[in-house]
Amino acid sequence: METILRIDLSAEGGPRAVRHPLGKYAGLAGRALTTAIIANEVPPDCEALGPANKLVIAPGLMSGTAASNCGRLSVGCKNPWTGLLEEANPGGRAAQYLGRLGVAAVVLEGAPPGGALYAVTIGEDGVGVAGADDLRGVTNHTLCRWVGERRSGAACLCIGPVGEMRLAGATIASTDRELRPVHHVSRGGVGAVMGRKGVKCVVIDPGEAETRPPAEPEAFREASALFLQGLAVYAATGRADSPHAAGPGGAGHACAQECGAVSCATFSAGNGRLAARHETAWSHSAECGISDPDALAELDHLEADFGLDPVETGRALGLAMRAGVIDFGDAEGAARLVREAGEGTHLGRILASGPSTMAACFGLEPPSPHPAWPRSDQALREDADGREAAERLRSSNDGSHLLSPKSREQVSRNLRIASAAMDSTGFCRFVVLAILEQGRTFEAMVDTINAMHGLRLTPDDLVELGRNILETEHNFNQRVRSPAPDVRPRGPLAGAFCRPSGAEPERREETGHA
Amino acid sequence: METILRIDLSAEGGPRAVRHPLGKYAGLAGRALTTAIIANEVPPDCEALGPANKLVIAPGLMSGTAASNCGRLSVGCKNPWTGLLEEANPGGRAAQYLGRLGVAAVVLEGAPPGGALYAVTIGEDGVGVAGADDLRGVTNHTLCRWVGERRSGAACLCIGPVGEMRLAGATIASTDRELRPVHHVSRGGVGAVMGRKGVKCVVIDPGEAETRPPAEPEAFREASALFLQGLAVYAATGRADSPHAAGPGGAGHACAQECGAVSCATFSAGNGRLAARHETAWSHSAECGISDPDALAELDHLEADFGLDPVETGRALGLAMRAGVIDFGDAEGAARLVREAGEGTHLGRILASGPSTMAACFGLEPPSPHPAWPRSDQALREDADGREAAERLRSSNDGSHLLSPKSREQVSRNLRIASAAMDSTGFCRFVVLAILEQGRTFEAMVDTINAMHGLRLTPDDLVELGRNILETEHNFNQRVRSPAPDVRPRGPLAGAFCRPSGAEPERREETGHA
Repeated sequence: METILRIDLSAEGGPRAVRHPLGKYAGLAGRALTTAIIANEVPPDCEALGPANKLVIAPGLMSGTAASNCGRLSVGCKNPWTGLLEEANPGGRAAQYLGRLGVAAVVLEGAPPGGALYAVTIGEDGVGVAGADDLRGVTNHTLCRWVGERRSGAACLCIGPVGEMRLAGATIASTDRELRPVHHVSRGGVGAVMGRKGVKCVVIDPGEAETRPPAEPEAFREASALFLQGLAVYAATGRADSPHAAGPGGAGHACAQECGAVSCATFSAGNGRLAARHETAWSHSAECGISDPDALAELDHLEADFGLDPVETGRALGLAMRAGVIDFGDAEGAARLVREAGEGTHLGRILASGPSTMAACFGLEPPSPHPAWPRSDQALREDADGREAAERLRSSNDGSHLLSPKSREQVSRNLRIASAAMDSTGFCRFVVLAILEQGRTFEAMVDTINAMHGLRLTPDDLVELGRNILETEHNFNQRVRSPAPDVRPRGPLAGAFCRPSGAEPERREETGHA
Repeated sequence: METILRIDLSAEGGPRAVRHPLGKYAGLAGRALTTAIIANEVPPDCEALGPANKLVIAPGLMSGTAASNCGRLSVGCKNPWTGLLEEANPGGRAAQYLGRLGVAAVVLEGAPPGGALYAVTIGEDGVGVAGADDLRGVTNHTLCRWVGERRSGAACLCIGPVGEMRLAGATIASTDRELRPVHHVSRGGVGAVMGRKGVKCVVIDPGEAETRPPAEPEAFREASALFLQGLAVYAATGRADSPHAAGPGGAGHACAQECGAVSCATFSAGNGRLAARHETAWSHSAECGISDPDALAELDHLEADFGLDPVETGRALGLAMRAGVIDFGDAEGAARLVREAGEGTHLGRILASGPSTMAACFGLEPPSPHPAWPRSDQALREDADGREAAERLRSSNDGSHLLSPKSREQVSRNLRIASAAMDSTGFCRFVVLAILEQGRTFEAMVDTINAMHGLRLTPDDLVELGRNILETEHNFNQRVRSPAPDVRPRGPLAGAFCRPSGAEPERREETGHA
């Protein structure tokens, strides 16, 4: 992972791709790198959908290695939903392939004039940026089939029509081993930012590029065997009958290289399509009262195809039901609305802009922000798979700390710190649960990292890394928020109210009356 | 102004109206009163469109008196646009009539179950709250004609269909002497809050109630004559040919009792309708390229009829043009979209939810907040009438202070303080310009207030009042914003990362790398 690949979409004469050495970003990867680049290079007050924003795509520290469960990608930008720096973290093959190709980050900068659309290809043979006007409006499944016909061994990061429309519910799809767009960078409207950059897809073709060799091969083999063993015996990361092709739900994908966190928690559908992703299943059932697996699979397929965040879309559909646009539980109506989002009708645009826009347009109280699983202990506790993990957390402590709000806040904070660190390694967040309870597995994970890179990191270093990432994000976001105005009278008009010149009045601290 | 009239729309068995003495709010009026009631009684973190919000309607300290230019009303709530406490300030007859009836504030509280709709009537004969399901969907002009047929001497505060839909661009209309809905409480979506309260209209019928008698009649006569004289000779508040029925544009309404700040700046239209209001004229010409007076008058009429903020609607229409929904300058297309807002089509709902929603639904960079004239020196300087005032400001000082951003910030801050104070008196903000340059007029204004109420206020007290109002608003709004999270690891999971128990790590202050 020697280089940062910067693609300037504003460059005169068309997009320009340049490789840079890591420079001051040396040692960073994944979320630590996306966060650092944005914090250093994006003006906090810029428009998320303006040319000054950057979309940073970075594999983890362990991506492209032979270690287990390290296929997570980090995608960050100032997001259009909240205007804040937020990072999202999908599975798929892209991280592994970028790692093998030695690309520490792809940075999409600027924005093309006149709404031009491009396809980026990254391979052993170099980087290409080609006009992609013929791909305009193409849905994710069709696009990925098209990619597969040309580069069957590649991974693809792409946007559907919703991303091209630059709507806040737009995702970036990330393909699995079969080049299917089943993983998604979903939160915060990252797909809208990619759409604004005029990039329809980033195709990553590793060609013959091999898994990256460890600095200390013997130590790596030992540590990663121990690590894998720890994952295999843990319920959320292993599977009794086949510990080396694991996944909590057992959907048939190897957690080891694929990151099964998305596809693993599916359940069977009878229509031959992939079953609904975990997020679609819970958001569309809880928010919309849709429980038929085939209906959920159909909605999931449509949303993945158009590039629409399943969590926020489920919530927006629920609001549409509350507003009376469709009936509660109406799966066909929900599918019709999702199709409208893909087509860009006015109602579809409202839906694809997310729950707050849906609430605004139908005069409803806006819903409170909803954490995507597993971003907090709340979600963790409510989630089907997470329930077991929470039970274990409960039993592994004194059993009462999860009951008090204060303790839950602490659990949430520490999970966030741990997650920020794990998002930098490329290891899946499920691993957090395994290492939380199995001290030896944690040590084995750190040893695996050290052996891979010839480092001498301690567990404390990872905590420090996680905290630094959160602090960097927090500092950036503080700068996004406007400073408090000073309301003391002074200057040319103060005298108009007969205040003696130079006599600054005291500030009064009371708040109610005058 | 002895009582606060509270109407609880959540009360069991239907709305309940109760008069309360001013109590701890004694001495407050207008914006000072609306701000104090909201800051004291509305939870900052409540939903603007939830039942815990309150809509406070308060005439100024001088409303209902014989003083000149004191017909402004203050309307405040936690607004749905930003979630912040914001106050808006219309003209019309309502403030004068509430003042004559001794009502210091009308407070709409709670929200009716099941979307019921009510009409409130306040008169010498008491307060009535009647079901108004037959008024559902009725536009403002039709509604006000209906009111006029029943109570010809009344004033009416009402919402159009956009307010009933609870959309963020919804206004509360305030009628003129002929019971026409030409004044509007426009900013922040106050009409949506009134819609959420289920109140279609508040009819204020003064009956035989007389102008309020001054505490010191002789002093009042003298001071108000001097005050009126000062206004008459000042360009923005007087008129050469008829100083006692003044208004900057001279549209035929007496500024003295009516507050002409809205209708005065109209210009002639050939179609027999009221010409476009000042705000409609500048927002629709600057943002949309529409300059034909008849077209502007038609748009103005439609927006007033549906209860739609002309400033934000002009900006949202401009964005619709930028998105290609209609062509730039297409007045007929603009009118069609505004009609869709009244009808509640999906596109109409997007328009009526304001420019940020329009931008979100069409993937455009959101426009920066646009100050309504005369809320800042920026707007003041750009405004046709304000240009003259700004020139005077310039010439009355050293001529350079308006050129530096720092000084413009000071001008803006002090204008805000002055405006907050004036919004509490009921005097029009135009008066700010007159008293700014004419020290004797300022003194005469303060003398008029003192003679009316038997007070001994100084000009300093008014500055203090203005500053306290801004500080109260600011403190409320700070509480709306979420506190910064503490990201230090602690609690149950901290130990999972092998931090020695009790050893709190130092916080690192750097922001970039980890």
